[in-house]
Amino acid sequence: MDKILEITLLYDFYGELLTDKQKQIFEMYHLNDLSLGEIGEQLKISRQAVRDSLKHSENSLKEYENKLELISKFICNKAYIEQIQQIINSLKQSALSEQSIKCLEQIDKLILKIVE
Amino acid sequence: MDKILEITLLYDFYGELLTDKQKQIFEMYHLNDLSLGEIGEQLKISRQAVRDSLKHSENSLKEYENKLELISKFICNKAYIEQIQQIINSLKQSALSEQSIKCLEQIDKLILKIVE
Repeated sequence: MDKILEITLLYDFYGELLTDKQKQIFEMYHLNDLSLGEIGEQLKISRQAVRDSLKHSENSLKEYENKLELISKFICNKAYIEQIQQIINSLKQSALSEQSIKCLEQIDKLILKIVE
Repeated sequence: MDKILEITLLYDFYGELLTDKQKQIFEMYHLNDLSLGEIGEQLKISRQAVRDSLKHSENSLKEYENKLELISKFICNKAYIEQIQQIINSLKQSALSEQSIKCLEQIDKLILKIVE
């Protein structure tokens, strides 16, 4: 997986488990694209302290994924849901009643809620 | 939610985030139904140490749920999936072709994989 996508997904899933300080530094660096120097200056800490915090956060996030595997499951579920959506689309194209098509559309809506 | 069900669900979802020692004590108490005294005796620690470990584990598990809300999402998803299954069942009972019914059964199977 692309490194940036990976770190973003990790943060989406486990970011809440970091401390407020770790989250702040993580977001300044990864979401707001500030440099280590700029972050250090704003927070009045050394570049090295910023680097250490980022490294520590990244390791924690990876550790959470190793233990809980939420991202792996999410990726699997997305694949299942895509398969279901394909089947629904092909079913819609067969000669179904208006009522049946409405039911399929309901299924489609409910499935999207699962992925959210 | 029933207290025992709640603690079991919490452990299912977040147990991996506890330390090995915490897991061991948690399982002895909640899964194997040993008393505080029996656990203390087996592990050569005081009853109070067992009680503290259990309390600490329970608090950690609840804290993880407060932050990640995996159980809330799981319960919502189960409800969506049940709704989808009901719609599939009613669709199956309408006059569909054999091919369409096969497709619906495929959807049903895929959905069960999402809940797993």
